[in-house]
Parts: sequence; structure tokens; C-alpha cells
Amino acid sequence: MIIVMKPNAALKSIESVVSYIENNGLQTHLSKGEEVTIIGIVGDKTKLPTENLISFKDVDRIVPVTESYKLANRKFHPDPSVVKVGNTLIGPDNMTIMAGPCAVETEEQLMCIARAVKKSGATILRGGAYKPRTSPYSFQGLEEEGLRYMQTAKKETGLSTICEVVSNEAIEAAVKYVDMIQIGARNMQNFILLKEAGRSGLPVLLKRGLCATIDEWLNAAEYIIAEGNPNVVLCERGIRTFETATRNTLDLSAVPVLKERTHLPVIADPSHSTGAYKYVPPMAKAAVACGADGLMIEVHDNPACALSDGPQSLTFEKFDKLTKELKPLCDLVGREFTGIIL
Amino acid sequence: MIIVMKPNAALKSIESVVSYIENNGLQTHLSKGEEVTIIGIVGDKTKLPTENLISFKDVDRIVPVTESYKLANRKFHPDPSVVKVGNTLIGPDNMTIMAGPCAVETEEQLMCIARAVKKSGATILRGGAYKPRTSPYSFQGLEEEGLRYMQTAKKETGLSTICEVVSNEAIEAAVKYVDMIQIGARNMQNFILLKEAGRSGLPVLLKRGLCATIDEWLNAAEYIIAEGNPNVVLCERGIRTFETATRNTLDLSAVPVLKERTHLPVIADPSHSTGAYKYVPPMAKAAVACGADGLMIEVHDNPACALSDGPQSLTFEKFDKLTKELKPLCDLVGREFTGIIL
Amino acid sequence: MIIVMKPNAALKSIESVVSYIENNGLQTHLSKGEEVTIIGIVGDKTKLPTENLISFKDVDRIVPVTESYKLANRKFHPDPSVVKVGNTLIGPDNMTIMAGPCAVETEEQLMCIARAVKKSGATILRGGAYKPRTSPYSFQGLEEEGLRYMQTAKKETGLSTICEVVSNEAIEAAVKYVDMIQIGARNMQNFILLKEAGRSGLPVLLKRGLCATIDEWLNAAEYIIAEGNPNVVLCERGIRTFETATRNTLDLSAVPVLKERTHLPVIADPSHSTGAYKYVPPMAKAAVACGADGLMIEVHDNPACALSDGPQSLTFEKFDKLTKELKPLCDLVGREFTGIIL
Amino acid sequence: MIIVMKPNAALKSIESVVSYIENNGLQTHLSKGEEVTIIGIVGDKTKLPTENLISFKDVDRIVPVTESYKLANRKFHPDPSVVKVGNTLIGPDNMTIMAGPCAVETEEQLMCIARAVKKSGATILRGGAYKPRTSPYSFQGLEEEGLRYMQTAKKETGLSTICEVVSNEAIEAAVKYVDMIQIGARNMQNFILLKEAGRSGLPVLLKRGLCATIDEWLNAAEYIIAEGNPNVVLCERGIRTFETATRNTLDLSAVPVLKERTHLPVIADPSHSTGAYKYVPPMAKAAVACGADGLMIEVHDNPACALSDGPQSLTFEKFDKLTKELKPLCDLVGREFTGIIL
Repeated sequence: MIIVMKPNAALKSIESVVSYIENNGLQTHLSKGEEVTIIGIVGDKTKLPTENLISFKDVDRIVPVTESYKLANRKFHPDPSVVKVGNTLIGPDNMTIMAGPCAVETEEQLMCIARAVKKSGATILRGGAYKPRTSPYSFQGLEEEGLRYMQTAKKETGLSTICEVVSNEAIEAAVKYVDMIQIGARNMQNFILLKEAGRSGLPVLLKRGLCATIDEWLNAAEYIIAEGNPNVVLCERGIRTFETATRNTLDLSAVPVLKERTHLPVIADPSHSTGAYKYVPPMAKAAVACGADGLMIEVHDNPACALSDGPQSLTFEKFDKLTKELKPLCDLVGREFTGIIL
Repeated sequence: MIIVMKPNAALKSIESVVSYIENNGLQTHLSKGEEVTIIGIVGDKTKLPTENLISFKDVDRIVPVTESYKLANRKFHPDPSVVKVGNTLIGPDNMTIMAGPCAVETEEQLMCIARAVKKSGATILRGGAYKPRTSPYSFQGLEEEGLRYMQTAKKETGLSTICEVVSNEAIEAAVKYVDMIQIGARNMQNFILLKEAGRSGLPVLLKRGLCATIDEWLNAAEYIIAEGNPNVVLCERGIRTFETATRNTLDLSAVPVLKERTHLPVIADPSHSTGAYKYVPPMAKAAVACGADGLMIEVHDNPACALSDGPQSLTFEKFDKLTKELKPLCDLVGREFTGIIL
Repeated sequence: MIIVMKPNAALKSIESVVSYIENNGLQTHLSKGEEVTIIGIVGDKTKLPTENLISFKDVDRIVPVTESYKLANRKFHPDPSVVKVGNTLIGPDNMTIMAGPCAVETEEQLMCIARAVKKSGATILRGGAYKPRTSPYSFQGLEEEGLRYMQTAKKETGLSTICEVVSNEAIEAAVKYVDMIQIGARNMQNFILLKEAGRSGLPVLLKRGLCATIDEWLNAAEYIIAEGNPNVVLCERGIRTFETATRNTLDLSAVPVLKERTHLPVIADPSHSTGAYKYVPPMAKAAVACGADGLMIEVHDNPACALSDGPQSLTFEKFDKLTKELKPLCDLVGREFTGIIL
Repeated sequence: MIIVMKPNAALKSIESVVSYIENNGLQTHLSKGEEVTIIGIVGDKTKLPTENLISFKDVDRIVPVTESYKLANRKFHPDPSVVKVGNTLIGPDNMTIMAGPCAVETEEQLMCIARAVKKSGATILRGGAYKPRTSPYSFQGLEEEGLRYMQTAKKETGLSTICEVVSNEAIEAAVKYVDMIQIGARNMQNFILLKEAGRSGLPVLLKRGLCATIDEWLNAAEYIIAEGNPNVVLCERGIRTFETATRNTLDLSAVPVLKERTHLPVIADPSHSTGAYKYVPPMAKAAVACGADGLMIEVHDNPACALSDGPQSLTFEKFDKLTKELKPLCDLVGREFTGIIL
């Protein structure tokens, strides 16, 4: 933490900042430049709310020099983490494909989609049972019934399963039926839910909030890990910008930035970010090319009749074509195209 | 809902869209232009997931023509609503000032601030007992203990009280102690929490999400009202943009836009949006000038020592100066500067 | 300028940064914290491209501590500037209203509008003769003919005049006919045009770019002033965000931020920012309330038939009603509602 | 163009809109739904400024149904265009690499970089002679002298050359020395410059503005083509968002969106968008994977001493490693890694 004083700050103002810091048990280090004086803070900053120093006379700016996330920070954990989901691994050596419908609709539909995505190479089945929808009048999901269908699909196909959770009740139910829980974009800073996910014992897929910075996202991951659950996977799913040609703007630069800042695996969701099935294949390939550890892709047996997000879903044929194209790309980037352990 | 077909769409494609719509019990209305054919949908659109029509052959665009929120919509409720909070009214005839610390820290601190803000004209005491913080290592609030202090402050000063809630448990506790609950920006699309707030029986202050559009915000209000609770007040608190000189960008144009689209009262929070105490007075005045029904302002006895958001808090002197300047402005815009009923 | 090294930076890396800086004739100041070492740079930073230091081994971040704009900086020019435009002053003591059509269409139309806006209190007539339009097929302006009409209107009404310029040729023409030139949002970083405007001898209204930060805007003003022209007025006209209810988001917080960072006068344009006439009056009042020195408002005799931006233009009646409402607000904020000197 | 009327619009309001349109020589088509009436406009909309219809009584919204760009529109030109630059082609069959320093500094430096990038596979040499810089006190480029060095480099290495232009004077000079001119992000809506570029006879690389939508960008391309110059290549170089980990956010989804909307070639610039050399290789690969026709990459012999944008420049070694990795990726996507014709 560095305190930058205003040009020509009064000596008294500088002393006042210094004594406030030192009275709180921390040390200071002064650096007097030609134009400005800078005060460095040495010691455990959690002892005082340093942001308030901006209210002191002649203080111009406070500059943090260390990140607030520790457990998610690559500086303190240089090797990339591998997260186990059911019988699948997500990490630097393979390319994990999660696929399935946006929302679980019926048991037949889910079984049909599960078989199709498995055949094309997916190892994790996605399917929403609790749907956060902008309007209260939109379809809200089958809830626990949907989770049971996920369990059935897992038993029959051997696929691992993931389901979004939106409440503590949903987490409690999910623990009984699926292999991984997902915190969606809208709940990325629902800190109560993050803590509960941390205590669930299940691996967690944490989607980026629509307007979350990468550092806020890593702080959200920190909430989960701080509860004793290190099995967090990050999912870039697009940020909100002024552009309207796509639903959101898939920020693929976040992939290499995250690879530098954290040891956690990173996957990308080209379906929700673009909102249009025709942009899914090119963006899926781009994500693999820039270093993603996996992909989450929506697949539906009949997109035109899907109860949720049909326009962005791939048909079985399109999904199969895409995975066939992804395989040689995975070879090129040195990843195995599959995550099944046994 | 209008379906815009691509130029030179095949007759078969048009028929396919029309029959899909009509098979779902709705009617269509064709409009053939020189360049494009447009299909209007007549009837209750909740019967089919119309967004999926974008997947049909030769469909270019889907254009909604009616809003998805009904209960919050001014079209169906032309008179502005007045929301009663304790012994205070929020509505078109007065200017309601909510003031207090970002976080409740101690009983003494809260009492001291409550007396000061009351003296300067505030009628609702704000104070956070459950703090959603970006980092898990920041101060998270006193929880129920903080709510009890709020109750004590209410008893002694007669001020009405408001407190943010972040979970169902927090709502259950808040109902016992305070007059209004607040859903913060990060939880604006925590639909579980919105529904619970709708069932709480207390009036709800709904802050705008950092990257929420006005229509998404009104849909979030719809979630609360749809549970039978019409007492919703909206609070503009800044949106996230590329500008870094202020913490967020206070979108004051949202005030007149909301006045047109909804009957719900609208207040502004110049403290959280700017993040700097010196910008609070000008933005508070601007909010009053453009039609806000109230203001939420952070006040602290010693901002430099606040446990949360000190830099944006006004001292007692600055808050008193501001309210003195707001009074003649309220006269000018035809609002009474106070919200106490008796 | 501060160089923050990575945790556990090698001594050799630190020495390498220090010697690079010192070899360029600057001095350094080391501050070794528990976690990180910080290197302050003392002296004239224009001597070396310091941004490149980020490429040095073990360098984590470069933090600038002083602004790059000097002539526009309030730190070096504490008193607010007053800019003279024709017989009008723009500054802290009055409220200057610029009004007129988006585009000059015919001489009759301009005369008719000029008389009306003068009657209602405007002192500067605006009117576009060179229109930057998104599509090449939209109306592009009357060019020099339009400027001549502006001159005629000035002669007859005594109003001062302002016109947007988009090229050196337009500046050369404008100098002959009008009192102030405007650099529009799209040209805010057209540095060639800024320099030419600086050499024109006329006062310059510099609109904020749609995605310009306040600091970039002040650097653009610096380009004009550095050519010897201190008569720059800044105009906030909305920034681009994800919100679609208004054309852009009027960033009124920019007004108090600018008042702190620069001595230049600041006005607001509620017409272009909102894009809708009904939002113009509330946002005009908000701008006055938060400290703006003036307003630029579009007025048209028949908005439904305007060749450009009709939807945001006020009719004569609406404009007159607005100025009548602005007068007592100006009294309240201590500004005279008029800018005519004699 | 569709006019959506408000619910319960008066018959008189509808008639008024209809007669306005028909009096301007266009036809209308009415569609009366249960809730709203919609008026379609049939005929040549350039005849009346239809946007103004929003000012008519009871009009709710205006919805455009056709794009304003024609010559750049893929609907009217289904085959992808190939643009010839010197002896190089940019189009669907190859991957064109433009590389070189941000700014031309000295003849020796340019020659040294030119030889290096050619050896690694670049076919077009980039180098800035006119630098648009945020601050007037930053290095502004060598101007015509820099262009002469570009010509020398072309003669010696056989590379084609590209240089940014910022004014008509710069275009006049560039025509004498280089093979392609570039319009930078800040000038994307400098319509005077676009027209002049259209008349220059040289192929034009048009960078996307920092906050330009894809449709505005295509309209800017339309300005160039409308002057008789169809040789336009689009360059995605990042948009401005709230994220600060990268300088801008590279919007790679724009690549497939553009491939659908326009026939013009599209390249990506991973250097300016990320602002950091370490993110350049992954984003370059991602751009190739999602369908870009080329890349623009900054390379410098000594990034730490570059006069401009050093932090994002690749060293020769890093650039060579990148191109070696790009080759098999090009094979995979069916593009030849080189653009030289003979």
C-alpha cells in the first residue's frame, strides 16, 4: 500500500498520515520526490481500513501494491491446479467439454441429449434445474426433479454432471445428485452463496459476473476456497459492453490474464456469451487456441422448441462437427481431447 | 412481438414461422414490404418461447414491442406510487433523506450519527449490518447485533430505519428490527432473495445492479411485486463504465426514464456512486433537480476511521451544510423537505 | 512515477531498473517493504519513455503520480478561467445557454429559431453546418452556406454564434463567420484538428469523446492550449454504456470532477446525451444544480421535420418553459442567467 | 422501417403518422395487434428523416429493419473480397502477417526490424510515422522522414508496407511511399479523413474505434468504399470496457459477426488491444482460430527502449517463436501462412 501525497503537501499532513499508520501498529517508509512525497506502508494491512486515508488532508491517492486474494493467487501457488469432477479431470493436460441443454425439460429430452453429447466427446453433462431468469414470468426450471433426471443420465451414460445452484436449498439438493455445482454470473458476488458453495464439498464452477473485473472474480473464488474448498474452476462467459451484435462480449484475453494470476483452471462458454449458435464454433476454437482448459457448450435436440436459450444451442450435428474440428486443435496445443480418467 | 424476415426469405420459410406460431394458439399478421416481410404475433406470448424463432430459416430478427414487466409498469398504473416506511412517506410530494453510516460499528457510534442526521433533516436512518464485501478478508458487518442497535436508535430518535439484507436469514432478522430492507446492487438479480423480500411484508429499497439496464431493474422489481409486495422503491447508485475518476458513473438520466416507465418512487445514492465525499453534495443536488424522490447519503462521525467506505462519507458538518442547501431546492421543485407524517 | 517490483524480485532486477533510470539522467528513491520493493523516479520524466520499464525483469507495475496535462491543470492555475465568446462570458458567475438547431437547414429556419431562442434567454446560437454522420447517405450539412446564415443571424439578433468544425477547411471558413468553434465527440482525439483549432484564434468548445476518460479529455484540451489558445470550454455530452434507454449516459459526475482538476469552464449537453426531448429539461436542471457553467440545447421550429436529430429537439414552447424554470435555479446556485456583457 | 405505436394510440395519431409518410411519397402498411398498432414503411426511406417520427403523438418506437451500409454489406456481395496490398493478398485463403515497430524511430532500427520480421514470415511491414498520442508532450512520429525509411525498407526486403495516416497531408505523403494506409481507432469516425482515404487509390486498413459498434464500423467502411475504393480491410483492435487487466478488450466475436455481415477481410491486432507482450501470442492464435484473415503485431529490436508502446512489443525471438506456432494452426484452418503472390 502506497500513499501518494498532493504536490506541496504540508509537513503536518504528512506527519498526520504517518502517525495514524504507526499508531495502528504498522511501519511507514517515506520517499520524498521533487514533486510529491510517497508514504509506503509496511506490515499487515488487515489491521486498519487503509482506504480511509484518502480522507486525510493533502492525501492524493492510495495505491494498493498487493492483491487481496491469496489462496487463488498464483504467486503463492505456482503450479496449475487440477480439479477432479466425477471421473473427469480439468487442468492443463486435457480439454474438458461440458455440454447439454440450457434447461432440463423432460427426462426423455435429457437422456437423448446426454447420449448425443457423450458420443461426440463431452465428458460432463450440463443442464439447468434452477434457472435465474430476468423476468418472473419466464420458465424457472424443474428444480429437484431436474436434478434427479441428471442423476439418471449420469447412471446410464457415465457422464459426470454439473448443475447451477441459486440458493442454499439448491446446493443441499445438488449435493445428492450431481458432481459439480455452478455459481452463475448473476450470483458471482452473492457472497452468502459463495460461502455455502465452499462448504458443500463439491467442486464449483464459478462464472464471471457480467460486469466483474478479473480481480473481483478472483476475490469471489477466494470466498469459496477460504471455506476449505480448493476445487474451483473459473468460467469466462462474456462481459457487458455497448456492442449489441452479440449478447455479451466474450473476453478471451481473460484466459491468459487468469493463467498468469491464478493457478485455478479456466474454461470458456461461447454459447451464453455470443447468444447465437452460429458464433459458437469459431469462439470455441479461439478459446482452445488461447489456452482454455475446457468449454461449456449448449446442445439441444430441437433448439427451436427449447424452453430457454434456444437461439444459442447447437444441434447434435453441429456439436458433433465442432468436436471433430476441436480434436486436431487440441493435439496442436498439447491437450488430450477428453477428460475421462478410466 | 414482431418477426423480421431476411430480404428474399423463401415463402416456405415464412409459412413455417407462421404455422409454428398458429399451432401454439396465437395469431399472426403479415406485412410484406418491398425489401422484407414482417410477421406480427397477436395474442398471449407467454404461451411459447418466441425467442427461439430466431433459429428458424430466413428469420433475421425478433423485435419485442411490449415490456415483460406489468405490475411495475406505468402504462397499467398511471399514478405515481407512495411508499410508507415507518412514519415516513416516499413519493412525489416530498424529498426523503436516508442517512447514516455505511456499516454499523458500535451502539455509541450509531446513536451519535442517528442524532446528528436527524438534526439535519434525515427521516430514515441507514446502517449496514450485513456487508457484501469484494474480499472475504474485509469487515463483514455486525449482523443481528447491528440490527438491534438500529432498533435502539429508532426508539430513541424516532427515525425510521433501513438495513441491507443478503440472505433469507438476514431478512428474517431484519423483519424484527427495521422498517425497510434494502437489496444491494450485487444482489439485484439474486431472484431467490427478491422473492423472499417480496414475501417479507416490509417495504423494499431495490438498488440497481452495476451493469443492469433499466428494463432488467424493473423486471427485478417485478419479482418483488409479484409476491404481493407493492412497496418497492428504486435506488440509482451508479453503473460501471470505463471512467475511473469516480467509483461508478451515477446515471441520473435513469431518474426521468424511470418516472416515465414506472410508478415506483426513485431515489439516488450519490455516496456509493461517486465514492468520494467531495462529489456527494453536487450530485445530491443534481438528483433533486432531475426529479428524484429521495436521497441515500453516507454520514460518519469520523470518516477517516470508518470500517467501511470512509472516503465517501460526509462529516456531520458537511451533511448539515448540504441539507441546508437542499431545502430551497426542494421548495423550487415543489417537494417538502421531510418525510415524517406526524 | 513509481515502479512496483514483483514480490521477491531479484536484487539484479532492481539494480537493472535503477541503472536504466539513472543512466537517463534521472534519480531514483528505493523503498523496500516486507513484500515488495518500490522504486520512485525523481526528475523530468519526459526524458525517457518510462512506460517501457514494464518490460524489465521482475517489474510488476508502473504507477504514474502526476498528470500529463499541465496548462489545463488546476494545480498550476487555481482560479477558474472565464472564456469570452463574442459579447458573452462563460465562467463561474453566469449560466450561458447555447441553443439552436442541430443542423442549419435554411436561412428562414435559422432566423426563426434564432429569434425564438434569444427571446427565451439564450445568448449563443448553435447550428451545425458540417455534420459528422454515421452513414455517408445521411444529410451532411450546408457547409459554408450554413456559416453565412449563422453570420446573418448574429447580425440581426446580436447573438454570439458557435459551429462545429470537422476539418482544417471548415476551421478556415468558420473563422470568417462565427464566434466559437466546436470540436465534436468523434473528433476529440483528432489531434491534427485540435492543433489547428489551437491556432485558429477562436475560443473552442471541446466535446467529450463517447468513450473518453476525463484525463484523456483534459489531454485533448492540452493540445489546443499548447498551441497558444487558452480559450477552451469543455462540454459533457454523454458517454457510451450498455444502457439503451437513452442514446448515451450523461456523466454529470464529470462536472464536479472537472471543477477539481481543471480551471476551464464546463457545460453540459442534455440533448445529444439523452437523445429524447422529454429528458432534456430534467437533465438541464441537474447540470445546473451540480455546477455546470452553461448548457447546449437543441431547439427546432418543427422537430418532426428536422433534417437531423429531430427527436431530441425542444419546440419553442418547451424551450421557453425550460428557461423560465432555470432562472430561479440559477439564482439559487448564485449564477446570473445570461451571459451578455453589455 | 417499422413504427410501433403506444398501446391505445388514438386513431388520429395513427392517421397523422400515416399521412406524414404518404405525403413524402412512401407507402405504409398497417398491422393492428391486440395491444399495439404497427406501421410499416414501404419505399425509399432516404426521402424523409424517419427518425423524427418519434416526435409524433402516440409513437412508441422506431425499428429499422435494414442496414444503412450497402457497399460493405454481404447481403449484396456474398463472396468474400480479396484485397491486394503491394505483392500480397489479404483474403480467405491465406494468413497475412503485418509486423513492425509501433513507431519508426531510425532508418537502422527499421531495417533491422524489417529483416527480422521478414525472416519469420511477415509479408507486410508496419511502422508509424504519424503517431496520434493522448498527450501533446509524447513523441509524435518522424512524419515524411519515417515514410522514406519505410520505402527504403520495402526496396531492400521486398516487404509490402503500411503506415497510419492522421490528416490529408499525411495521406498525400503516404501515397508516394507505402502500399497501404491505416486509419486508426481514434479517427474511425473522422469522416473527412475516411473520404480522403477513399480517394487516395491505396488500400485502407480501417481500425475499429474504441467504442464503436460493429455497425458503425461498417458504416465508416462505407464512407471509404462510396468514394470508389473497395479495397478496405477491417482491423479489430480492442474496445473499451471496465476491465483494467488489459489495455482494451479484444472483441474476437467481432470476427465471425463481421464474416457474416460483410465481404471485407478482417484482421486482428493483439498488440494494441492487450497492451502487454505476454498476452500477444495466445490472442494471435485465438484470432486465427476464429477466422481472422491476418494479424498485425508489434515487433521491436529492444522493447525496453522503444519510443512508443514498448510494453506490448515482441522481441525478434518471441515473434519468431509465435510465427512457428502459427503455421500448423494455419494448416488446420485451411489458410496458407504467407501472402506473397510471386
